[in-house]
Amino acid sequence: MSAVTARIDAPDLRLPQPYLLFLGDVTEPGYAKTAMGLRDWAPERCVGEFASSPDALTTGLPRLTPTEAYLKGARALVIGVANPGGVIKPSWMASLLAALDAGLDLISGMHGKLEDSRELRAAAERLGRRLIDIRRPPENIPVATGRKRSGRRLLTVGTDCALGKKYTALALARAFAARGLDADFRASGQTGIMIAGGGMPMDAVVSDFEAGAAELLSPDAAPDHWDVIEGQGSLFHPAYAAVSLGLLHGSQPDVVVLCHEPGRTRLLGYPDYPVPTLAAAIETNLALGRLTNTAIRCAGVSFNTGGLDPAAAEAAMAEASAALGLPVADPIRGGARFEALVEACLA
Amino acid sequence: MSAVTARIDAPDLRLPQPYLLFLGDVTEPGYAKTAMGLRDWAPERCVGEFASSPDALTTGLPRLTPTEAYLKGARALVIGVANPGGVIKPSWMASLLAALDAGLDLISGMHGKLEDSRELRAAAERLGRRLIDIRRPPENIPVATGRKRSGRRLLTVGTDCALGKKYTALALARAFAARGLDADFRASGQTGIMIAGGGMPMDAVVSDFEAGAAELLSPDAAPDHWDVIEGQGSLFHPAYAAVSLGLLHGSQPDVVVLCHEPGRTRLLGYPDYPVPTLAAAIETNLALGRLTNTAIRCAGVSFNTGGLDPAAAEAAMAEASAALGLPVADPIRGGARFEALVEACLA
Repeated sequence: MSAVTARIDAPDLRLPQPYLLFLGDVTEPGYAKTAMGLRDWAPERCVGEFASSPDALTTGLPRLTPTEAYLKGARALVIGVANPGGVIKPSWMASLLAALDAGLDLISGMHGKLEDSRELRAAAERLGRRLIDIRRPPENIPVATGRKRSGRRLLTVGTDCALGKKYTALALARAFAARGLDADFRASGQTGIMIAGGGMPMDAVVSDFEAGAAELLSPDAAPDHWDVIEGQGSLFHPAYAAVSLGLLHGSQPDVVVLCHEPGRTRLLGYPDYPVPTLAAAIETNLALGRLTNTAIRCAGVSFNTGGLDPAAAEAAMAEASAALGLPVADPIRGGARFEALVEACLA
Repeated sequence: MSAVTARIDAPDLRLPQPYLLFLGDVTEPGYAKTAMGLRDWAPERCVGEFASSPDALTTGLPRLTPTEAYLKGARALVIGVANPGGVIKPSWMASLLAALDAGLDLISGMHGKLEDSRELRAAAERLGRRLIDIRRPPENIPVATGRKRSGRRLLTVGTDCALGKKYTALALARAFAARGLDADFRASGQTGIMIAGGGMPMDAVVSDFEAGAAELLSPDAAPDHWDVIEGQGSLFHPAYAAVSLGLLHGSQPDVVVLCHEPGRTRLLGYPDYPVPTLAAAIETNLALGRLTNTAIRCAGVSFNTGGLDPAAAEAAMAEASAALGLPVADPIRGGARFEALVEACLA
């Protein structure tokens, strides 16, 4: 009973959807990563694209006006591009106002907040639309209870930042679903949140509520349901370990998969800090994770081998797998190694 | 050079002071803990007291009008009382406005924010005064760098919340100063911040900046200077471990002192969670603290024996000390045990 009440009272982590992807006037693919990622990972949430300039690049999705998109079911315009300053360009304003007018909410993951535009705020208020900044967590996140929740949980953890925790969680959630399992990808960062259609920006949550936010992110579920949770940071990171620990405790995972980039020996941007060994990273995550789930185990390791040729990648994975006695796979390369990792997660 | 620049750019963590303590109309000592704590722990920062009712209790300090206090050097009125709802009472308003008028800033640690009062906001703006809510961290906290800072640092850590981490840090900082050492108490929670005249409300900082906030709290210092840092939460707490870990990493302590309440076997408010053993708590703090300071060590344990008679307290401390091979003391009881703990910290 109390679980049901908690779910009713909890903030709604879902985004309005499906999306119309906004490309602005961007011609450089590097600035359209969000739009491309949504096209690739959440095609079922994307009804089309919309640009403020005929020269803008394309995702290949149908180009629609906001009204056409609304009639096709779209409920939000997602700003799918960035510019160097992370701000909303004045030349985009007419397009954004047109979207609000057509019945679409606005979703942004940029540094510059939608709410900081007086023009957008006034239009949204007048029309009853929402301006959603993905980097802003919901209000009223509760303090963690530590109560064991029903359902199964997997968390991707890392030896550092930016080495494949989101990608690995997405690939595992897909593989679980392909096996007919009931599985949800649970997003903890802004790109993941747009892909998942909801989630929790864990790095933006006030520390006292960090574990509580993670508890909200993967609520009680059916006993055979899997939440596959996107990890953040690393317990070995001098700046971000607090985020990682709150997410680990609140997620209370049954299974962790360690993500690593072979060849990376120093933390990105922190040359004085070594990347931990795989064994140390696994041991520390399990030791700390046991606080909220005594049955936690590590199913294997996900390697980001994008910088290696196939033979070198295979050699690195084979060596690590033999040393650890665990499956090691690169989800982008897939194959038998990845199948073995999936099997080990479900074992 | 860069260290100096960093200090100039960093948010100023100091409060305007000395204080005039505001008692409102409170007659119940339990609601005046902040005022009493400031009188006891920071008498040099308190020029007097001020009440909005003649029936209010007294701290024993001179009762002054805001103008008298200003002329004696006071620069802020501290709301030193609470009421059950944690809100600013309408009957206090005339007194608070009089303080602003007299040239004093307002400082509050209540749940209800000073800024939420339109009347106070308007007066502060007109007069050029500040409304300071202790629970609100400063803007522009940077991400942690992990860079080793100069000076020495001690952090109190705990087996749980609310068992003496602030009191222990205050007592150790006093003992260090009494030995002629250059030592600062560094406050990480609201009561401590008022006592110290500044600090960082660590539990209110956004997770991504938690370790960075701790770095700000104890900046570079002279090689023989000691920062004695108030700990928060516990690494074994399912809700607050993220706060504890960010504070541990950012503090990069040379010495930790573990705080514990003998006889407490379950975390306060979390009956499913056992209090860890002293040995496990020490080991985990050292293992994780080594990330940012490889020389970290545990100097001893601080017991809160308020619930025990003197003989039982002595027996508990003697037993723990023998088992751990470390000094164990209750700073409130003081004596040879506390001297031994202080010596071990400085060894």
